[in-house]
Amino acid sequence: MVSSSVNLDELCINTIRGLSLDAVQKAKSGHPGLPLGAAAMGYVLWTKHMRFNPSHPHWFNRDRFILSAGHGCMLQYSLLHLCGFDLSLEDLKNFRQLHSRTPGHPENHMTPGVEMATGPLGQGVAHAVGFAIAEKFLAARYNRPGHSVIDHFTYAICSDGDLMEGISNEAASLAGHLQLGKLIMLYDDNGITIDGPTSLAFTESVQRRYEALGWHTQVIDGESVSAVDHAIEAAKEHKDQPSIILCRTIIGYGAPHMQGTNKIHSNPLPQEEFEATKKAFGLPPEISFTEPEEALAHFRKSVSTGAQLEEEWNEAMAAYAKDYPTESKELQDAINGDFGDAWIDALPACTEKIATRKAGQLVIKASFPYLPTVIGGSADLVESNLTHQDWRPDFQPDTPAGFNINFGIREHAMCAAVNGITLHGATRGYGASFMVFTDYARPSLRLAAIMECPSIFVFTHDSIGVGEDGPTHEPVEHLTSLRAIPNFNVIRPADGNEAAAAWKVALQSTKTPTLLALSRQALPSLTPGTVRDHPLEKGGYILDEAEGGKPELILIGTGSELQHCVAARNILQAEGIPTRVVSLPSWFLFDHQPDSYKKSVIDRSIPTVSIEAGSTMAWPRYSDAQVGVDRFGLSAPGDLVMKELGITVENLVEKAKQLLASK
Amino acid sequence: MVSSSVNLDELCINTIRGLSLDAVQKAKSGHPGLPLGAAAMGYVLWTKHMRFNPSHPHWFNRDRFILSAGHGCMLQYSLLHLCGFDLSLEDLKNFRQLHSRTPGHPENHMTPGVEMATGPLGQGVAHAVGFAIAEKFLAARYNRPGHSVIDHFTYAICSDGDLMEGISNEAASLAGHLQLGKLIMLYDDNGITIDGPTSLAFTESVQRRYEALGWHTQVIDGESVSAVDHAIEAAKEHKDQPSIILCRTIIGYGAPHMQGTNKIHSNPLPQEEFEATKKAFGLPPEISFTEPEEALAHFRKSVSTGAQLEEEWNEAMAAYAKDYPTESKELQDAINGDFGDAWIDALPACTEKIATRKAGQLVIKASFPYLPTVIGGSADLVESNLTHQDWRPDFQPDTPAGFNINFGIREHAMCAAVNGITLHGATRGYGASFMVFTDYARPSLRLAAIMECPSIFVFTHDSIGVGEDGPTHEPVEHLTSLRAIPNFNVIRPADGNEAAAAWKVALQSTKTPTLLALSRQALPSLTPGTVRDHPLEKGGYILDEAEGGKPELILIGTGSELQHCVAARNILQAEGIPTRVVSLPSWFLFDHQPDSYKKSVIDRSIPTVSIEAGSTMAWPRYSDAQVGVDRFGLSAPGDLVMKELGITVENLVEKAKQLLASK
Repeated sequence: MVSSSVNLDELCINTIRGLSLDAVQKAKSGHPGLPLGAAAMGYVLWTKHMRFNPSHPHWFNRDRFILSAGHGCMLQYSLLHLCGFDLSLEDLKNFRQLHSRTPGHPENHMTPGVEMATGPLGQGVAHAVGFAIAEKFLAARYNRPGHSVIDHFTYAICSDGDLMEGISNEAASLAGHLQLGKLIMLYDDNGITIDGPTSLAFTESVQRRYEALGWHTQVIDGESVSAVDHAIEAAKEHKDQPSIILCRTIIGYGAPHMQGTNKIHSNPLPQEEFEATKKAFGLPPEISFTEPEEALAHFRKSVSTGAQLEEEWNEAMAAYAKDYPTESKELQDAINGDFGDAWIDALPACTEKIATRKAGQLVIKASFPYLPTVIGGSADLVESNLTHQDWRPDFQPDTPAGFNINFGIREHAMCAAVNGITLHGATRGYGASFMVFTDYARPSLRLAAIMECPSIFVFTHDSIGVGEDGPTHEPVEHLTSLRAIPNFNVIRPADGNEAAAAWKVALQSTKTPTLLALSRQALPSLTPGTVRDHPLEKGGYILDEAEGGKPELILIGTGSELQHCVAARNILQAEGIPTRVVSLPSWFLFDHQPDSYKKSVIDRSIPTVSIEAGSTMAWPRYSDAQVGVDRFGLSAPGDLVMKELGITVENLVEKAKQLLASK
Repeated sequence: MVSSSVNLDELCINTIRGLSLDAVQKAKSGHPGLPLGAAAMGYVLWTKHMRFNPSHPHWFNRDRFILSAGHGCMLQYSLLHLCGFDLSLEDLKNFRQLHSRTPGHPENHMTPGVEMATGPLGQGVAHAVGFAIAEKFLAARYNRPGHSVIDHFTYAICSDGDLMEGISNEAASLAGHLQLGKLIMLYDDNGITIDGPTSLAFTESVQRRYEALGWHTQVIDGESVSAVDHAIEAAKEHKDQPSIILCRTIIGYGAPHMQGTNKIHSNPLPQEEFEATKKAFGLPPEISFTEPEEALAHFRKSVSTGAQLEEEWNEAMAAYAKDYPTESKELQDAINGDFGDAWIDALPACTEKIATRKAGQLVIKASFPYLPTVIGGSADLVESNLTHQDWRPDFQPDTPAGFNINFGIREHAMCAAVNGITLHGATRGYGASFMVFTDYARPSLRLAAIMECPSIFVFTHDSIGVGEDGPTHEPVEHLTSLRAIPNFNVIRPADGNEAAAAWKVALQSTKTPTLLALSRQALPSLTPGTVRDHPLEKGGYILDEAEGGKPELILIGTGSELQHCVAARNILQAEGIPTRVVSLPSWFLFDHQPDSYKKSVIDRSIPTVSIEAGSTMAWPRYSDAQVGVDRFGLSAPGDLVMKELGITVENLVEKAKQLLASK
């Protein structure tokens, strides 16, 4: 019966609104505007379209859902709870409280059913593109006639802010180019941001922009259940282009005096307005966390539906395994993230003089054949970054089973998409550019660390050794600034062997993103060729012990400067100063070693000098004196720049002698 | 005569091409593709449209020119030289060499006539928007009937990469909204990027995107002098919208085997191809730096034309001064960057408990009335950042004399535009957002530092004290990562007085950008109310000397944690430990003090503990033990997060005692 169904829809939508409003009100903090305005969108999407299993949030073939407008997370928490995920009413009542599972913005490792952390605007949109790439790649690689074992949509809800941020345009341009037909974005087009109406700053035509970017677009009444329903259906049918549905909504829907204004964006309601709004929803005017039985029952159908969906998929997978045992095993290995040790055995020893970016290329050539779902590429610098899997096709609309992604000159969207690919599961993403352009991607690098997402970021041309391109292209502060990010492993290998070992660490990481800082220029082979068990895995180690075993001096180097430590040691020991050389490619890994080990490598009672072609600011953590670069670089041939800025053996020797003299 | 004029045009264009090609070839490094393909665009723009005075590159009413595609800088250097700027043929021959005035990418303080440093893609486009905002504001504020003393265009040449970067879309959306009719962008639409044809990754319709963003668009043959000429003319006529001219060009134009391919993008040519290309231009096949007399004479007309333009403007300014003496004086003061001391005298002393962002608001209210050309705003957080000049109108299309810019949720374009406003001259820009979102704007923050551009960046909510919004919104590593940028002054004031003094430093800076890291929460008044000569200007100072004058311990704090040092000192002194408290709001300023001063404040022979609600990684530079935050934050009320993560007086006292016990 239409009328009762309409009433049930309304009851369900108002239930979402009530729970969200109560949670914000109880927390005295949060964003009520989006959950009220987008409740209908969320309701229709989650109950009429999305395929998921609340009892098993990680069911592999689920539709992925990303609330890019993470500030509206009470919408997501309400839906998760109502649909039967392991998120209780008690959890909702603890919204934004210490150690609750309902933090102020969604966090994937806190809350079942949350695919990624959102909040910083634009990130969800760009990560969603990564999820959709992963699905398209896996479907193309593993599906077979009669066996669509990988087949899901990626849905995102986004806000004005998401679409103002540059990263979302980068990502949408890429998604349009790649024709990601199973990416469907619902834009909560409410015409309001924190400061006021969008007419203050955002008067472009989003619809026409997305058309220009190659998207399928629809404009609808986002408060209408049937309009949202039909639009999602149409978007699903439209398979050649990603879809954006511009849902005209009313922020803070239902609040009699505040709806449609910025006053309801990001604050609890005044008591009177709160009560009036609750009444308008037919709910008790106090904080009650009401779940009408009929509504709850309707939402909870997801539990049985979801179980059935997964069951059907399990059967499909079994049939697939029977007909395609090889493909099935490979896919299952990918889902489990376990391809055995063949790729490790294949890792090359790099005993010649070689740029570490070039050593990285050797790793890709040797090991990636055993890793059938590691996909990625470069932001238009593939010949410089050397990250191409050149025996494998590109990932393009007509070759979706390809491995190499041409991200374009879009470092930010690239790193976000790499995270999305990695978070999706079964796939592992990597992206590459010049080290100095980490700056363009920082919000996504940070988010990888927050999300415990083991993305691999390959940044080459890691110092003033870049040379002629000059200060805008020469990283100086970047190693320091990136090492400061928690749970973010910056590795700067000193030679080919360390580079191979660094790739191994990156590929084996499960909860930490890795950034490989690789050299443009060739570096001599200095470290052991035992890639399977290279001391790099400890982050820092004694490369050369002092003659006689009792150092009077320690020299620490990373990357291209480690060779200077070795040369300086020879000079200093010839002058009677027993000198230890320490390679310290990863502060992150080193800091995680036991104190006893750390002290055995860097003993602060022994005078210590470090050298690194970058900021010295944070080096007092490990050394008493530093050779480094505390200014911007210069445009000139790289070796001249190094000399001009004092990154030399002579300077290191002199600094060491000064230090010893001062003690 | 048409034919000879056509021949002259061709001669001039080929002269640009020849010089550019020779310079790259001689340097054995550089990007020949753009100068060859865009030479016609550059020639037409610089000789037929742009108004400038080569003998006085800083003539105030000049058209501004920005080569956003900075890698093609030989185009710009050739034009500067040919048009008679102080850039010799010898300078061109030293392209990309140590200490030359022709670095690998343009740098404003190295080369006369270069308005800004470019190279990192997208930056030029977004900075150009700032230049155009400045012009529009100044024109609206100072022009009077019959007196158009401010009246110039802002031109930019951009590439595919510029338009792929998200920042350019943010900036273009803002420019369209603001109807910056005197911003004209020539897009070198050559269909090629480093990795190959744009069909690999960039297949959107740029023209339709820019239409959607509110721009006037034209598509033309960019190798045709007349087409470029007419299009620029049409763009100048079209006053209500910014203009983009999509110039279809051929990268590496003239190279018989390499033109139109990515092979000619960023490398010198093979010898044979080089010779063939030079011959195609009717130039000697060797590296010759040929300047045909007729061409040089034509370009050099700019010298007399330019002198005349400036002379006419001087006369116009004199007439303006006569009719509008007050406005004229104000404008002249703005151009000189000198508004006297009234704004300093007006700076408030903030002796109450106050959030430093709130103190910043008091500064704006008190001092900005004396600063008639400081314009800026927030990235949609004005009620949080408190940066509004609320007695003054917004800068909107219908109120171009307004001071408050609604940047939208576009932190990156905001910071770039702020730089453009500041570089323009006569105006000073500022922008604001949350501290954690500095990540979104890093490339523009870095560029400000490289350019010696004294922009003011106001970032509030500077710690885990943000609270409920959780880890995605709580800066942890940001102070460290920003302090590592050379020539970048991060100031984190500890109370209202320090906040006012920090604003003074920022406004007085001439070559260094300043970032004000301001607290969300209220902080007690601790420091002297002498804003005119506050010790903050030294970066660090003794706030409270140890009882008896001989400290056995030093406690260093910044921002919201300085209060903990004061409280800990009381506890420790009560236990008989004479304790000095040091406030260290700016590492940048402190590091520039004489060694003797620094040692008088922080004496490393005295045990020292620092406290700051952020990464401890770089603090060993100043302290022996640290209280800080080396993990991501948490979603909970701010004071609970502070406690949970150990930013407390108790923890500081304990850390100090441990340190003393270990010595």
